[in-house]
Order: sequence, then structure tokens, then C-alpha cells
Amino acid sequence: MTNKDARTPASAQDEKSEEAGKSIGWHKAYVEGSRPDLRVPVRQVHLTNGQSVTLYDTSGPYTDPLVDTDVRRGLSPLRENWIITRGDTEEYAGRPVRPEDDGIKHTSPRGGLRNLDAVFPGRPRQPRRGRAGQAVTQLAYARRGEITPEMEFVALRENVSPEVVREEIAAGRAVLPANVNHPEIEPMIIGKRFLVKVNANIGNSAVTSSIEEEVEKMTWATRWGADTVMDLSTGRNIHTTREWVLRNSPVPIGTVPLYQALEKVDGKAEELTWEIYKDTVIEQAEQGVDYMTVHAGVRLAYVPLTANRKTGIVSRGGSIMAAWCLAHHKESFLYENFEELCEILAAYDVTYSLGDGLRPGSIADANDEAQFAELRTLGELNRIARRFNVQTMIEGPGHVPMHKIKENIDLQQEICDEAPFYTLGPLTTDVAPAYDHITSGIGAAMIAWWGTAMLCYVTPKEHLGLPNRDDVKTGVITYKIAAHAADLAKGHPGAQEWDDALSDARFEFRWEDQFNLALDPDTAREFHDETLPAEPAKTAHFCSMCGPKFCSMKISQDIRREHGTSRSEIEEGMAQKSKEFAAAGNRVYLPIAD
Amino acid sequence: MTNKDARTPASAQDEKSEEAGKSIGWHKAYVEGSRPDLRVPVRQVHLTNGQSVTLYDTSGPYTDPLVDTDVRRGLSPLRENWIITRGDTEEYAGRPVRPEDDGIKHTSPRGGLRNLDAVFPGRPRQPRRGRAGQAVTQLAYARRGEITPEMEFVALRENVSPEVVREEIAAGRAVLPANVNHPEIEPMIIGKRFLVKVNANIGNSAVTSSIEEEVEKMTWATRWGADTVMDLSTGRNIHTTREWVLRNSPVPIGTVPLYQALEKVDGKAEELTWEIYKDTVIEQAEQGVDYMTVHAGVRLAYVPLTANRKTGIVSRGGSIMAAWCLAHHKESFLYENFEELCEILAAYDVTYSLGDGLRPGSIADANDEAQFAELRTLGELNRIARRFNVQTMIEGPGHVPMHKIKENIDLQQEICDEAPFYTLGPLTTDVAPAYDHITSGIGAAMIAWWGTAMLCYVTPKEHLGLPNRDDVKTGVITYKIAAHAADLAKGHPGAQEWDDALSDARFEFRWEDQFNLALDPDTAREFHDETLPAEPAKTAHFCSMCGPKFCSMKISQDIRREHGTSRSEIEEGMAQKSKEFAAAGNRVYLPIAD
Repeated sequence: MTNKDARTPASAQDEKSEEAGKSIGWHKAYVEGSRPDLRVPVRQVHLTNGQSVTLYDTSGPYTDPLVDTDVRRGLSPLRENWIITRGDTEEYAGRPVRPEDDGIKHTSPRGGLRNLDAVFPGRPRQPRRGRAGQAVTQLAYARRGEITPEMEFVALRENVSPEVVREEIAAGRAVLPANVNHPEIEPMIIGKRFLVKVNANIGNSAVTSSIEEEVEKMTWATRWGADTVMDLSTGRNIHTTREWVLRNSPVPIGTVPLYQALEKVDGKAEELTWEIYKDTVIEQAEQGVDYMTVHAGVRLAYVPLTANRKTGIVSRGGSIMAAWCLAHHKESFLYENFEELCEILAAYDVTYSLGDGLRPGSIADANDEAQFAELRTLGELNRIARRFNVQTMIEGPGHVPMHKIKENIDLQQEICDEAPFYTLGPLTTDVAPAYDHITSGIGAAMIAWWGTAMLCYVTPKEHLGLPNRDDVKTGVITYKIAAHAADLAKGHPGAQEWDDALSDARFEFRWEDQFNLALDPDTAREFHDETLPAEPAKTAHFCSMCGPKFCSMKISQDIRREHGTSRSEIEEGMAQKSKEFAAAGNRVYLPIAD
Repeated sequence: MTNKDARTPASAQDEKSEEAGKSIGWHKAYVEGSRPDLRVPVRQVHLTNGQSVTLYDTSGPYTDPLVDTDVRRGLSPLRENWIITRGDTEEYAGRPVRPEDDGIKHTSPRGGLRNLDAVFPGRPRQPRRGRAGQAVTQLAYARRGEITPEMEFVALRENVSPEVVREEIAAGRAVLPANVNHPEIEPMIIGKRFLVKVNANIGNSAVTSSIEEEVEKMTWATRWGADTVMDLSTGRNIHTTREWVLRNSPVPIGTVPLYQALEKVDGKAEELTWEIYKDTVIEQAEQGVDYMTVHAGVRLAYVPLTANRKTGIVSRGGSIMAAWCLAHHKESFLYENFEELCEILAAYDVTYSLGDGLRPGSIADANDEAQFAELRTLGELNRIARRFNVQTMIEGPGHVPMHKIKENIDLQQEICDEAPFYTLGPLTTDVAPAYDHITSGIGAAMIAWWGTAMLCYVTPKEHLGLPNRDDVKTGVITYKIAAHAADLAKGHPGAQEWDDALSDARFEFRWEDQFNLALDPDTAREFHDETLPAEPAKTAHFCSMCGPKFCSMKISQDIRREHGTSRSEIEEGMAQKSKEFAAAGNRVYLPIAD
């Protein structure tokens, strides 16, 4: 999205910042809101023709050379004053952190904290929650007609009026995930009337990876455009990893509390209890998790519906809950205690992401009875959450062939009263492990066009291993493409300005501008240089694909130069010009090199 | 596509071949037709559970360990006997090859042949063409009700009846590109009732790359699944490069004769003549080019329609013809001489690929007046070609946002009497140079679902440089994904068996089967090994993503093991089983490692 006309980014630091960023073709700027502490970050791309293009920016203070960041200290708490000023929350002692929160209860040689300084060394903090009787969620504020600083922030970010933001949140068609204990975030919004968002999953597992890597994956993912990050750690040091991630994250953080709860019972699903789960939710809410996946739709009666599936239950949370239900032959404790869970989430403004535990894991299982039975329950839970003022989005599949995708979003919107849909892919075929960012990018673009509000990325390692740094980047870029393609198809105001700016640069052979406007300037520049590394090639009116004599865009430009730039000019002047042209022995284009 | 039930691949060489292929999990097999010289190659994947899956195979004799291939000799002429037996063609002296065919008319230090043995050293051959008065195209045969060996070959390949093949060709809804001078090909068909096909472009340019590289790119592209290859060379040695490529290609080869014609007039578009163009077409037809892109739809009157475009004319052929029309203020010589061109193509059974010279080069220019004006002319030309029995397909865009894609295929099918559509992408956004295989893979999957018969791949280097080996592979794999996703969405019979086989392998933790069934087994295996390299991990009932305790598919399997495999079993036994389960202290799953 560009917003070069609507707003003039202003910043006391602009002069210095511009200096610092100029060498890479863009710099961080801020759009100021109605108060001095409300400054929306944007990426300002400077073009060689003197114009500039302003793009949405998720990278946080890390890309501002004037902000001194330090992962040991954490980001500065941008929203703290807004939260305190509202006066409806209070600090309290909080739940003591226990060794088992990090999975350290065995005398395992592999136990213990392994990286960085282990326990987060930043400023001491106490958790905060809503005061008794106070509704402290953005949904509650929106319903009361209040436009919070968070809403104004996202309005500026999306280039819409604050009232539109408030209305969409109030209607439950959008969520603004912002735990009162995560004041570091730059607010963002998820809803079909806004830009399509992308989530990147990170997280260590029992098998591999460290705290340090996870923090770095988070900053890396947001640098490339991830709008939220889910920490899906399942190994040890879950609590501590999350603390580091939260304190350093400029974007909302999501989790699946069930994973940590299961660690606490040593991986034995049948030993899970509502108490252990609830304790884990509170632990995470106090840390500042902004949204939580809750698989409360996996009901006892639905488990048999998966018996004849090709790939059974492929959601981790779904299978854990199914195992629990079967072991006890009881209704899901998440379903049974859903109202109490709503009360907890409401106290911190944690947003629900109602998990699709029975999503299809293969083309064969798409859109089956199990999947849609769960979806109907999610619709019911969405209405309950709304009663408690808890913001809610709904998770979606999975593996779905193209012709079955639209039914997913249409049903979800109908059943869940237009609550934001948050989908994983969907993957449009099963046959391409190592390329599932692509099999799913196809489905993601389509379902986002049709109304999905946020896309959960899939990396090339899906089904095969844990994503590394490169995989995270590839996943994010692929999904930014899907999201932007959907913004275009939805006719999102301003979306096409970015394409137009890049295409203008392309047509005018402004190579540096083309690189700087690209979703991934580094790789675009690198690919160009691979074939034509010389510096003059950056201004050449051709490239290595056709060579100097064949460039079609050059020919087009020459046509315009020779015959005028408008249709009527060309039409009127065509006969005359072509005579002169032949007489003068001109060539249609001049080879630059031979 | 799998065909494990319909046909039993048989081969005298199967035993030895199986031996040779076993180590890599698949081997080349052949399905025999009604005559001993009609053997359709397939890829037979051997699963560890004793079953096998048969997949469509484009890789040619190179993957058959029993065939001795040598690029200096060329492939054996599989179709030669079929062509001779028909008795409707004759050998003749042919046009002498001239130095300027390879662009060697200057005393340039960069001139001359550079690689391999330069002139192709294989068996001497004379060109062949239809005898006077004989209609020798597959379209002519189909209309007469004849089922050729080529048609039987593709019927076996597609697992349909030969009569369906004949009907589709006769109706002009499918083409079987097979120049009588390219007997080396394994016939294939392009039409919406068949599997969606993928074309890979190769070709050197004035700036970079060599004959050797181009031949290798062709075998490399077909190894990964390219159904046809276009040689778009624009530099020197065009004739010789093409000869090497043709003699070694098991798939149809396409070209854009205009590129070579322009080389012959030293890059001066206005000096092009119908005679030079015609001579080039004959030169290429005698070599064996199977289909040719002809930009005969770029008419003089349409050029002004591009004047207000964001990116003018981006097709090389289109811009050359536009420049020629303007320079002479004359109607296109391709349009004016189209009937004579039809006569030439008919004599060799060269298939038309009517080029979209005015395709949009940016989101801003999609579906505009210029584009659709040309499309209407292509419809007119298609009807003329049909009168001359020339097989014809129609090329399509380009850069098109998702919501404008369907109009393209619907209009094309209507205007061009359902002639096969052959599209480049379309790219669904302009903002991701270096990832245009993905921006376009999204559009390609969608337009193929809606009826496009062949997709022209786009590599990561699009807009930036010439694709190398890795880019070619990435482009082909991305487009095979798009094509297969479309086959699934179209409900192509048998398409889903491949997905099902892979998903079964995934659910049953048959890792080696999952790799061998993958579109790209090498990368799938490599990605898995990156996180869990140990050999036992290949049979482990978990992977690095969730670790041993969290695997959802393992939990699903355990549920089945504990509670039965059918829905009724689970429903009936659930209460009873869960009691026993708790009493016995069983765990839902057993960690394999900790």
C-alpha cells in the first residue's frame, strides 16, 4: 500500500534518518497522529526521479537507525501510557514463574536453559489485568463508541478513518490483538476490510533450535513483512523463550497454550486438566501473549468423524484434545469451560484464535463432515466470546483443492457472523513437499481474495523439518505476495499504487528504483547482478534477458518518442511520422552495446 | 496422474531396468500400445509397502538406464517409421544453411561457434514435407477420422480412449505438436480435456550463455516435468543451438521465428520483410520445430491503443511488429501473408501458437482495449488456420490481477472457438521481482483450473536476468504444482491418486515413499535430512517439526489403534475402550525418543 498523497510522513528525526537510509534507497519515517506519542512507522522509498513511495512497515524500531535497540533490554513500551491512562487496569503480583514452566522438572542432561542469559534481563515488570468489573478489550471500547489510540494508530496505518476501524471491531468483523501486558507492539488490525495480513510461525521443538534463534527469527520475519508471529515452541525453555520474544516483538504474538500445558504433564494427553490448562493461559496472558489458539471446537462426538479420513487429525492441538476426549470419554474440557476461559482472556484483552483442530491434512479429506462439524461449533463459541467482549478470529484449513476453497470462506463467514478468518494456506495439492510455500501460496491468495483476513504462512520445510532463517524469509515473502495479490483483487484502495510505481520504474529502466520497491530488494538486485554485474547495467536501457537489441520496452519507449505519447497523437501523426522515419533512415532503437 | 489400475506397464527390459532404478525408488517403464514400436514411457515409483504408483513421465530416454544416449548423436527417431509409413511426405534437398542463420556475417570478434563441436555431428538427414496435395497434419488426420500412432500414444499417456484424442484434435480443442522433421519426440497433447501442460523457455541471448548450456537446460527442464520447451535464443548460433536442442529433445520444441529473422536484418525491425521471415520459418520447419509463436495479431490499428499504457508493449515479438507497422505505416506483413504462412506450416505439421504481442506487462494494463482487440484478431486467424488444417493454440497474458483472470480464459474460449489457451502466468502482482515464479504460479493455477491447456513457466529471474539451471528447475516445479493443482480442481480422472498415495505415505510415516512420490524427491529428502539426518529418522514415527512427543499424525494413528479404524467401531467401542484405557494406565502414544 502506498500513501504518498494522503499523508505526509513527518518526523523530528527525518533529516538524520534520511541520511542513514539513503544508501539503501529507503528510510524509516513516521506518520504522526493526534498526539505526540502516536507515530505510525512507514517505509519511505526514495526514487531516482525525485518521487517517493510510502509502504506499510512491520519491521519495528530495528530498522530505525535513530533507535538504539538491545534484545537484552527489550523494546520501549509504546502503548504503556495509553493503557495506564485508561485507568481500567491494575498491576498485581502475578503467578510465580515455576521451573516446570520451562519444562525443567526432570534431572535431564538436556534440561536447563541454554542460550543468551536465559532469564530475560530487561526491566522488571509486574503483570497487569482489568480491574474488577471493567471491560478492557478493544472490542468493549469499540462497542462503547470509544476510539482508542490503538484504533487511531491502525487507522493511520491502513489509511482509513478511525471510525471505520471502530465499527469493524465493534461488529466483530475485525480484531486488534493487543494484550495489556504487551505494550511494546505497534498496533495492527485483522479484518477483511483492511489489508490482508500474514502470520509467521516460529518456535523451538524438543528436537532442535534455541532461544536466540527464535528471537532472531521473529525480528527477521517482521523485517520481511510478517504482521504477527506465533511462538509454537514445544521443547524446553518455552516460558523463557516466549519472554524474550514478547519483550522484543513489535508485532502481536500468538501461541497455542495447549502445547505448553502438555509439556507440564510430560506429554501425556490424558493427564491434562482444565486447571493445568487454565494456569498456563494465565501464565501466558501475564507475559503478554496477544492471541491464543484454542481448540475448543474438537468435541467428543466429532472424533469418530475422522475415522475414515486419509490422514486423520493433523492439527497437533486437535489430536491432543481428541486423545483426551477418548481417554476420558468426556466432552472436551476446553468446550466445557469456555465461558471461564472467556473471562480470563477478557481481563488481559487476549484475542481468541479458535483453532480448527479437525482441519483436513490431505486433499482427500478437504471439506468433510468432521471439518464442518467443528466449524459450526466455532460459530457457537464465537457468539459466546462476543458476550464476554473477547475479540475472536477463526482458524481455517489446511489442505484444500482449488475448487473447494470458496466453500470454506463462505461457510465460515456465514456460520461465524463474519468474524475474521485466519487460514493456513490452504495447500492446493499434496504432491510437492519442499515447495509447500507454493502449493499453499496459491490457495492463500485465492482465499484472501474471497475474504480471509490473515494468512498463516507455510515455509518450504512444511512436512519435512523446522524452518531456518532462509525458510522463514521465503515463507513470509511468498505470503506477502499472496496477501498483496488479494489486496489488488479486492480493490483495496491504494494497493495498486505500489504495483504502478514498480511498473513505472521497470518501464523507464530505473533499475535501482525497481529493486528498492521490490518486496525483496536484496534478491532482486542479486539476481540482476548475477547476469549483468557491471554498474552501468543498473542504468542500461536493457537487461540480460533480451540483450541490447531486443528489448521490447525499449522499443515501446522509442515508439512513444517517435510518435507521441497519447493515442490521438500516435493516430494523427502515424502516417506522417512513418514517412519521415523512413526518409531519415532512423532505426527504431539504438543498440547500447553490441 | 497415476494409473496403477488401468494399465500394467510392461517391458522386455523391466527386470534389468527395475534393478537399475531401485536404489532411487523409481524406474522407467513402458506401457505398450497396439504395435511393438508404440511404447509410452512412465515413471514407476516403488513403495515400501509393496505397491507401486505410475506417474506421467516427460524425461525421455535419458532416465532409462538401458538406453545409451549421446548428445552428439541425438535421440533415436521414434516416430520416423510412422511418418514414412503414412506415405504422404517426401524428403527433399531443403534450404541450404547459411552463415547468417547463425548470425555470422560480421567479422566480429564475438562471432563464430563457441561450444561442443559447433555443427551438430549426428546422422545426416534431409528435411521432409508433405507431398503436393497431401494434408499431413494431425488435425487433417483427425478430421478424416484417422487415429494415428501419435494419437494412440497420447491416449495411453493420458489414460483416455484414442477416440477422445481424435475428437478433441478434430474439433480444434486440442493440438498434438509434432513436426514431421522432429521424429525424436514422444508425442503429447495440449487441450483442456487433458492434463494441464507446462512449457519451459530456454535460449541464449546476445549477452550470455552457450549452446551446451541450452541443450543441458532442455534435458534438465524435461527431467523435472516440462512438457514442451521453447528455444528463445536471440544471440548468435541460433540455428546451430536449435539443431542440437531438436535432435536431443524428447518433447516438442517451440520457437519465435521473428527473433531469428530480426537477427538476420541486424536488429533493424523496419528492415524485416515477409521474404526474410518466410525463409526463416522454412529454415526452422525443416529443422523440426514443432510449434511457432506468430505475432500476426499485432495490427497497425492496434498500436495506438497501447499509447496510454503504463508499460506499453512488453512482448518482444509484439514490439518488433509494432515498430515495423509504424515505420512503414503498413498493415503487419504477418497478418497480410497469413494464408501463405498457413500453407507452409501445414506442409510440415508445424502448430501455430498465435502470440499475444499486446499482452499487458503490468497490473495497470490488464484486460485493456489493446489486449482484447488483438484477441479478436487471433480468433479470426484461428479460423483461417483451421481452413488450412494447421493446428492452432492461442497465447495469453501476462500481468493480470486475480479478479481479472477469468475474463481472459472465458473470452479466449469464446472468441477462439475453444482452441487451446497457452498462457504466461499470469502474474498477479508486479511488486515481487525475484519471486515471479510465485506471483505467476498463483495466476497459472487459477487460469488452468478455468480451462487453460498449457502454462508457460516463469522463473525467479523473470524481469531480472537469464535463468540458470536452478532457476529452470524452480520454474518447472512451480508450474507443475500449478498444473497439478488445476488437474485436481478440474476433477481430472486419476489426478488425485497421486496426492492420495503421497498422503497415505505421510500418514503412515513412510518417509522414503513420501520423498520418492514428491515432485522433487531430492529437495524433499535434503530438507528432511537438514534437521534430522540420522538414518533411523527415515523410519521414525515423528519428525523434527513437533518432535517425538507431539506428532499429531502419530496420535491419530494411536487413536485408531486403540479405538478401531471405522467410525462405527469408534462410536460403539468408545465408552468401553476409554474405561479399559484408563484402567490399564496406557498412554495415548509412546515417545520414541526423549
